[in-house]
Amino acid sequence: MTTPRSIVASLLQEGESRSAGKVAARVLFISMVLISIAAIVFETAEEFAKSQGALLRTIEYLTVALFVVEYLLRLWVTPDLAPDGLRYPAKARAGYLLSIYGVIDLIAILPFVIGIVLPIDADWLRVLRLLRVLKLARYVPALGLFAEVVRNERRPLLAALMVMLVLLLINSAIMYAIEREVQPKTFSSIPNVMWWCIVTMASVGYGDMTPLSTQGKVFGGFVMLLGIAMFAIPAGILATGFAAEIRKRDFVVTWQMVSKLPLFTHLDASRIAEIANLLKRRLVPAQYAIVRRGETADSMYFILDGEVEVDVQPTPLRLGRGQYFGELALLNDTVRNATVTAVSDCQLLTLDAADFRRLLNAHPELKNKISQVAQERRQP
Amino acid sequence: MTTPRSIVASLLQEGESRSAGKVAARVLFISMVLISIAAIVFETAEEFAKSQGALLRTIEYLTVALFVVEYLLRLWVTPDLAPDGLRYPAKARAGYLLSIYGVIDLIAILPFVIGIVLPIDADWLRVLRLLRVLKLARYVPALGLFAEVVRNERRPLLAALMVMLVLLLINSAIMYAIEREVQPKTFSSIPNVMWWCIVTMASVGYGDMTPLSTQGKVFGGFVMLLGIAMFAIPAGILATGFAAEIRKRDFVVTWQMVSKLPLFTHLDASRIAEIANLLKRRLVPAQYAIVRRGETADSMYFILDGEVEVDVQPTPLRLGRGQYFGELALLNDTVRNATVTAVSDCQLLTLDAADFRRLLNAHPELKNKISQVAQERRQP
Amino acid sequence: MTTPRSIVASLLQEGESRSAGKVAARVLFISMVLISIAAIVFETAEEFAKSQGALLRTIEYLTVALFVVEYLLRLWVTPDLAPDGLRYPAKARAGYLLSIYGVIDLIAILPFVIGIVLPIDADWLRVLRLLRVLKLARYVPALGLFAEVVRNERRPLLAALMVMLVLLLINSAIMYAIEREVQPKTFSSIPNVMWWCIVTMASVGYGDMTPLSTQGKVFGGFVMLLGIAMFAIPAGILATGFAAEIRKRDFVVTWQMVSKLPLFTHLDASRIAEIANLLKRRLVPAQYAIVRRGETADSMYFILDGEVEVDVQPTPLRLGRGQYFGELALLNDTVRNATVTAVSDCQLLTLDAADFRRLLNAHPELKNKISQVAQERRQP
Amino acid sequence: MTTPRSIVASLLQEGESRSAGKVAARVLFISMVLISIAAIVFETAEEFAKSQGALLRTIEYLTVALFVVEYLLRLWVTPDLAPDGLRYPAKARAGYLLSIYGVIDLIAILPFVIGIVLPIDADWLRVLRLLRVLKLARYVPALGLFAEVVRNERRPLLAALMVMLVLLLINSAIMYAIEREVQPKTFSSIPNVMWWCIVTMASVGYGDMTPLSTQGKVFGGFVMLLGIAMFAIPAGILATGFAAEIRKRDFVVTWQMVSKLPLFTHLDASRIAEIANLLKRRLVPAQYAIVRRGETADSMYFILDGEVEVDVQPTPLRLGRGQYFGELALLNDTVRNATVTAVSDCQLLTLDAADFRRLLNAHPELKNKISQVAQERRQP
Repeated sequence: MTTPRSIVASLLQEGESRSAGKVAARVLFISMVLISIAAIVFETAEEFAKSQGALLRTIEYLTVALFVVEYLLRLWVTPDLAPDGLRYPAKARAGYLLSIYGVIDLIAILPFVIGIVLPIDADWLRVLRLLRVLKLARYVPALGLFAEVVRNERRPLLAALMVMLVLLLINSAIMYAIEREVQPKTFSSIPNVMWWCIVTMASVGYGDMTPLSTQGKVFGGFVMLLGIAMFAIPAGILATGFAAEIRKRDFVVTWQMVSKLPLFTHLDASRIAEIANLLKRRLVPAQYAIVRRGETADSMYFILDGEVEVDVQPTPLRLGRGQYFGELALLNDTVRNATVTAVSDCQLLTLDAADFRRLLNAHPELKNKISQVAQERRQP
Repeated sequence: MTTPRSIVASLLQEGESRSAGKVAARVLFISMVLISIAAIVFETAEEFAKSQGALLRTIEYLTVALFVVEYLLRLWVTPDLAPDGLRYPAKARAGYLLSIYGVIDLIAILPFVIGIVLPIDADWLRVLRLLRVLKLARYVPALGLFAEVVRNERRPLLAALMVMLVLLLINSAIMYAIEREVQPKTFSSIPNVMWWCIVTMASVGYGDMTPLSTQGKVFGGFVMLLGIAMFAIPAGILATGFAAEIRKRDFVVTWQMVSKLPLFTHLDASRIAEIANLLKRRLVPAQYAIVRRGETADSMYFILDGEVEVDVQPTPLRLGRGQYFGELALLNDTVRNATVTAVSDCQLLTLDAADFRRLLNAHPELKNKISQVAQERRQP
Repeated sequence: MTTPRSIVASLLQEGESRSAGKVAARVLFISMVLISIAAIVFETAEEFAKSQGALLRTIEYLTVALFVVEYLLRLWVTPDLAPDGLRYPAKARAGYLLSIYGVIDLIAILPFVIGIVLPIDADWLRVLRLLRVLKLARYVPALGLFAEVVRNERRPLLAALMVMLVLLLINSAIMYAIEREVQPKTFSSIPNVMWWCIVTMASVGYGDMTPLSTQGKVFGGFVMLLGIAMFAIPAGILATGFAAEIRKRDFVVTWQMVSKLPLFTHLDASRIAEIANLLKRRLVPAQYAIVRRGETADSMYFILDGEVEVDVQPTPLRLGRGQYFGELALLNDTVRNATVTAVSDCQLLTLDAADFRRLLNAHPELKNKISQVAQERRQP
Repeated sequence: MTTPRSIVASLLQEGESRSAGKVAARVLFISMVLISIAAIVFETAEEFAKSQGALLRTIEYLTVALFVVEYLLRLWVTPDLAPDGLRYPAKARAGYLLSIYGVIDLIAILPFVIGIVLPIDADWLRVLRLLRVLKLARYVPALGLFAEVVRNERRPLLAALMVMLVLLLINSAIMYAIEREVQPKTFSSIPNVMWWCIVTMASVGYGDMTPLSTQGKVFGGFVMLLGIAMFAIPAGILATGFAAEIRKRDFVVTWQMVSKLPLFTHLDASRIAEIANLLKRRLVPAQYAIVRRGETADSMYFILDGEVEVDVQPTPLRLGRGQYFGELALLNDTVRNATVTAVSDCQLLTLDAADFRRLLNAHPELKNKISQVAQERRQP
């Protein structure tokens, strides 16, 4: 069913595959965003804007036009991307419009329209136009980890912020009381001194306001030490948060790995979660002999990453990502009939013999599949 | 017993419920504190103070009056809030007066009185008046985590502070010896050089004092590297401290969760702690089939967060926070008679079959309660 | 054997006991060090030194005299402090002289002598004199944790330092190539630019040298980002190091706690280590019923911290730090005959029934001691 | 086979042994790199370069000559260093040329040639010449840990960088809109304001651009807080990364330790990995009695670090790093016939009795070796 729409859909969809068309589409979108951002930024450089005004305007018109086309295309092909999209295209489209990416795509084109319709200040309009940089978020998957950690730790982070603001307030009032007489013009009011205080606590230290009196300097030193501690607190919170989040994701990662193993792709989500719980991750260094000819078989292995060599006759067999081994001896209840050695550092998932038998009994179709591959392996 | 006092008490009491009255009271208090703080701060902005002096004074009078009323009200209703308060009202009130929040509430109104009675300098009085910002602490529960971590790690933090002060002293003396000849006016004494040293080690760097000689610059660079290490040490200590504290709180959290489950609310604290030790927390992703029809039953489940669907006939049943499932098969020693699937990501507490039986034998009233619900579930 | 020497020894020895004499000695030493440091620092404040020269000199003479007396006293009493000191006093004294504290105590007085004998520059002599601040290290036990972490992580920290220095070198050379033409006087040589680079990478930013050319600013921004990463690396290393070191110390802490329990004080180190391995630490919240009348006894408990209440007739019994309970039922193989509830949050060490019996069989003297206390408890 | 080539090879090879020749070679190379770097740096100090030009040129010629010689020597001896080098010398040499160290060694000499051949700018050529500092990497093994952590965490670090750049862009546009009117010359375009923004977010704060308007200061304070959070994020990521990497290396460390134990040196890599999985690391404090005469034997011990004392008659026996004990009782199935006490803090690897027997059965040659040593121990 390669309708024009499904082709466009496959070009626009995010994912791991790297077909030439998709890479081209991605390069086009990223470069258009970057060029467009650069154009907006250099608009403000007066001389450059004067000499190259026409170019900058052209870039703006072109990129906005492209973003409009992209927006409409995405709206058009959404049903092909959503799971139930083809049955409820209107619902799928509404979903895109309201999704975070849909809103970002809209934000990329809206300021252009606003600029024409409303008499908004050019500088602030420019800020809005620059928000199109958010379109890049689509291409940075690790951002999710971030967002999650910040979301999990938002309460201690907010508490840290509040402590900081309270200290800012009290410290500024104290510094004002200390330093006002010596520098009545610079340290002229608490709001003014707050500028000194935040500049100092954040350890920025412009030097536009510095205490001159001895007491002011002593208290200033104390404020700096407080600032260091304030720095350290979000660092501590976030370090803990990242560690916790990464631990939590490990289960999800195993789940996703299992769901990508060809043997299990036909299973539904809850069955995959069940298998993910049975499998254990294991790292083996290169050169490590994972199973050895003649040993009693106690588990089978799935390769998540790396490559192994099975020393069968006449030529050794190489297995890589997504493949499995060690099932023959389990199927026939015999000892290992070949040594398997890691060629590179390998990440494996192991399945115990007992769980293996239970699984095959529960899923006859799995048993058939495995037996069939085993047959092929025995008579290559 | 909704006496006027108990109504006021329910408005003032902290807690999770979000009745309209409570939210209104909270918004009122927070906004009065913020407005009052803003007024004090802008008092010092000369021009603003001149033109709006009357307004600022009015705000001060009003807010202090409100804080006095709040203080008296809290004192009045304290017996309704404390566990034994109604039996020993005087003791409950004394407890409030001496509690951390009681002291903060007093600090919010005391400076006003002091300012009238004592001839204290206006600037320092203002610092005291600003301390009313601490009233906000009541509304930021995460502050406790902080205080605890700092309390736990106070010894290494103090040691870090001492190392910093010793380095500050020695480095300043060395810099004084190096730089005095080149800049006799700026680097004129060790106390003066200490200002440069703290500004540099805290990486603030105002630029009001910088070494000019080559040796001074080399030693300055070394001081900066020391400063980076000094920064890193409290960060390391606090990261470790937060991780440890959060691990420790997990037990307490489980305890509190158990104590909120409707089934256990009538139990006393030590019995809840016992049950908390029996229960294990477990996260399941959405779509995960927690129990499946026909499986042997090995545990029952309490829902801490999220929602599950029990596929009973004729319409599936949804269960949410605080409810439990999986007890039927345990009660009757049969296999599961319905599949239960997580609708969203769920946090569950699981209770093993063996512990379940032991618990019911020890607590006949628990057994009755569970049997009764089970009865209802079977004949809906 | 309270000879004068042993009395002085008990005053000078470090440790946990807080007798009045020891506290007084400690306060004296700490305050003399601080006063002496302050005097040295204010010597350099010209006006103060002129007007108060006599006072400062007096302080110096007095404190050095005290440090000499302290040094001689410590040397005299060392045999009373060292384990084998009284048998080999000369060896014990040599041990003190060469120990880290012995060297620090010598450093506190040596510069005074050097200043008289050698024509050393007064500024550098002052640096040496300030080293007496190290005497304070004796009173900050947490410094050991620090030293240990830095020692453990010295290799990655040195590697981080080397990366920083290499980046400093290369970045300075690049900046010199970029910025020399625009600011030939400020960015006049690579050593000069290195000053800018370290000031920037350490995020100090005095502002005495800033790039002016566009390329210089772009590269400067890049150097700042590198600086942030450089900051983060030692923080990461130290956070990991602190976590590891604290985990490692937990065993040692249990060991020390066991060695302080009155019941075990007569045991030798290796036997204590053996018991420490048998005991498990456990935290219970206030109000938690640790053992309940009528339960089967499965372990006994030692109180490390907190207080418990045993509800025996006629008045409940309170037990605190260092005491134990729950041994009666184990001795007689009966059920618990009293409920024990935690009054405050408690840290306990628990000993399983099996290990308890094994321990008593191996150590008849322990059995006698416990039986004797049990006797007293039954007939109070 | 001590051919001249093998002697040179042993001098140039990295490794743990510290023969005089190797140390001399290492000192020579490191000092030549440092001297050469210093000469390049001081070339740019005009006065120094004028007066000492001849010296600087001589250093450059000499060091480059030495690096050329070193490069050729390394190329010559490579076959002696590579495992299969002597059989395929050409392949070994090509391997060196393309290895990271080979490239670095080439970079150390190439710029000299380029400087003669191409008319490249002297400043940029100097940057290339300074890259010879990378030769030092050969002597800092901990750099690998670094590289690995950065490689593992590159995705969240890049995401953090992207967040920072996006915030830089948007914040600069906002600040430009706010501050342009007040300071049209300084905050004259978004690229210019970006310089302020990066200087502020990295908390460098030169002070060459500071906001003057109130709104500008308020927004500036907000940017500083964002900067603190941005700082904390890479610190958090790297702390987690270091912890994970160090955990992962522990297996590898055990593996390497086992491979260095004299008893196992003849085993191949995969068999060592198998044994490494059987052994458990254990720390014992000094004075701890590891095995006691008369106890039932349950394991044998390998000493990784530290020293133990076996109290055999007539003189106690000391065992150190790489040696083992506790095997006698396992071999003969008897109780321990001597107490073994840790003299210093010891790191041990323990092997359970069951695994010990299984291992000896699988490896008769291991059994012979152990029996032979046991024989010697019994009749010393």
